[in-house]
Amino acid sequence: MSVSEAEATEKTTNTIQKLLFTPGPLTTTPTVKAAMQVDYGSRDVAFIQTVKEVREELLKLGGVSQEEGYESIIMQGSGTFGIESVLSSVVPDLGNLLIIINGAYGERMAKMAYVNRLIYTELKFPENTTPDLDVIAERLASDKSITHIAVVHCETTTGIFNPVQAIGQLASKYGKTFIVDAMSSFGGVPFDIKASQADFLVSSSNKCIEGVPGFSFVIADREALKKAKGQARSLTLDLYTQWEGLEKNGQFRFTPPTHAIVAFRQALKELEAEGGVEARTARYQENYNTLIEGMRNLGFKEYLDKDKQGWIITSFLYPENENFDFNEFYARLNEQGYVIYPGKLSQADCFRIGNIGQIYKKDVEGLIAAIKRAKAAMGF
Amino acid sequence: MSVSEAEATEKTTNTIQKLLFTPGPLTTTPTVKAAMQVDYGSRDVAFIQTVKEVREELLKLGGVSQEEGYESIIMQGSGTFGIESVLSSVVPDLGNLLIIINGAYGERMAKMAYVNRLIYTELKFPENTTPDLDVIAERLASDKSITHIAVVHCETTTGIFNPVQAIGQLASKYGKTFIVDAMSSFGGVPFDIKASQADFLVSSSNKCIEGVPGFSFVIADREALKKAKGQARSLTLDLYTQWEGLEKNGQFRFTPPTHAIVAFRQALKELEAEGGVEARTARYQENYNTLIEGMRNLGFKEYLDKDKQGWIITSFLYPENENFDFNEFYARLNEQGYVIYPGKLSQADCFRIGNIGQIYKKDVEGLIAAIKRAKAAMGF
Repeated sequence: MSVSEAEATEKTTNTIQKLLFTPGPLTTTPTVKAAMQVDYGSRDVAFIQTVKEVREELLKLGGVSQEEGYESIIMQGSGTFGIESVLSSVVPDLGNLLIIINGAYGERMAKMAYVNRLIYTELKFPENTTPDLDVIAERLASDKSITHIAVVHCETTTGIFNPVQAIGQLASKYGKTFIVDAMSSFGGVPFDIKASQADFLVSSSNKCIEGVPGFSFVIADREALKKAKGQARSLTLDLYTQWEGLEKNGQFRFTPPTHAIVAFRQALKELEAEGGVEARTARYQENYNTLIEGMRNLGFKEYLDKDKQGWIITSFLYPENENFDFNEFYARLNEQGYVIYPGKLSQADCFRIGNIGQIYKKDVEGLIAAIKRAKAAMGF
Repeated sequence: MSVSEAEATEKTTNTIQKLLFTPGPLTTTPTVKAAMQVDYGSRDVAFIQTVKEVREELLKLGGVSQEEGYESIIMQGSGTFGIESVLSSVVPDLGNLLIIINGAYGERMAKMAYVNRLIYTELKFPENTTPDLDVIAERLASDKSITHIAVVHCETTTGIFNPVQAIGQLASKYGKTFIVDAMSSFGGVPFDIKASQADFLVSSSNKCIEGVPGFSFVIADREALKKAKGQARSLTLDLYTQWEGLEKNGQFRFTPPTHAIVAFRQALKELEAEGGVEARTARYQENYNTLIEGMRNLGFKEYLDKDKQGWIITSFLYPENENFDFNEFYARLNEQGYVIYPGKLSQADCFRIGNIGQIYKKDVEGLIAAIKRAKAAMGF
């Protein structure tokens, strides 16, 4: 299907495609969506081949290979299902999971650990700072019961980038299994799995690879993965048997989201055509820079210091003006075709603007112009 | 989008749409797939409205309402995720789940109970018979520790229809919570939730409602649902908090499969346009009758006695002929555009043919003709 055909397809739907400035689901290409115009049998040869290709491409994207001892596993459900699959499968009953927290997604891992009745330790840092490496090292040195460490790469709460490579090196130094939630970053932020000694990296279909939502995926160190055998607390979220099933006959244990997976195969091809992670990173950075410049010109302030802010999503403080009302602001942008995102901070009133997905500099400029109009109309 | 436009859209994909004679994913309409040509924000008004409509329609389809004390909950992941969500959320630590088993999907519930460390009791019956109501009644009378009962409506292993209404009445008589896996039947087999006293009914997007795969749904008795509060063994599969989230602001707790859900909304509209469950049941029955007649004429035998066989999917015994090879048979049908399904029986060599999804009498006749050609070519 050519791009022009796909565009024609999109027009026939009679629904205006808004631009999604969110952490996902994102705006995807017409060709990614067009890949979903066919129904595949989940046990049919064509679909099994697609799954195989996706799993191979994910390893390549991660800069690792089966020969080097890595595996990729696809898991139905959103990214959070992937995270819970890892935590509930790999931490043994007598393990102790150290969860490094500086935002809602770190908190969510702690909730999972609690619900799954794992033994776990929370190490909390303020939402506007990166985790203190000395504090982490001290804890690892003093608490020998810790077996696993989990941290979020890009905390979508604020958009902060956490120092995963340095934390991974500490994990390795102290001999701990290292789990990285790379949900919002994988594919849009260069990340060296080997250098950061990550045993498990989790991301999802609808983030920087720009597929549609429906599944998460895990890149795992094979030896660490094998230790999860027989340990899962759930049948569907059992990471080990999911891997075993995919290896045995290329099939999912339970009905996969076939359409989302064929769309993802297309999205991977388009990522490669764009120039891979490097080119996508550059585009997102350009989007981010355009956003920050435009927002500052309009008087908005970011929640985070610039040196901590990543280029995936940005939290902006509510303007200190009584005419500002987030719901009205959101609605005014929405009717102009721009979808932004509410805040999720515990300590400051913020809204968020993401700049990933099929968004380009001109789109960010369009958003800034729409924000300018909303600001003028609302009088703040 | 008109049907002709949708057909044009489908042609542009350059991929031949095979007909899926499987238990799902199924063949869906071009218009259902075309609904996935737009990206929606998961917290955006338009999508929240769609979720609301889907939840309302599901209750209507089940012949129940909120006023009568029922709720509907959507859960990411395949149907099995929905089943595990229910079992792991509603059975308390000191409960005892009686699982009635006469096939692989009953066995799967027992595996779930085991992995989730529930207390459970298996009550097994042969795969070619329906569960014996006297045996069930006896067990309920003698074992007072039983708190919950789970059974599969249409066991996709064989295609047998289990007497859910009679089992539900026993559950009610003995005061047990009743859970029905209606995965392959809901929407294609009339089912009276109230008469069968079902507290929890689970089905999925890619079965008789003819949507695409990506999520499951639960219709629940509100009072039974409320008892699940704080009881789940998993964060993502927590049925109660998933419901609570949907009720609070219409949103999912974790990224929903937006495209699969808008496709499902369209599928629900098309089910209504076809004439509802009654008309769909009639179409599936016609498909089934055409299939059985055609297969018998070609010398194939069903695994089940006719009086136990449902009209969703049929298990056929391998022909007793050395020239029959299932993989070759499958491939020969596949290259003619027909996808059938392998068997899953523990005690007999079978293959399966489903007749649900966008399949009509003429399509079944086409399949029969293809099978006749394959049979002649293979010489069995």
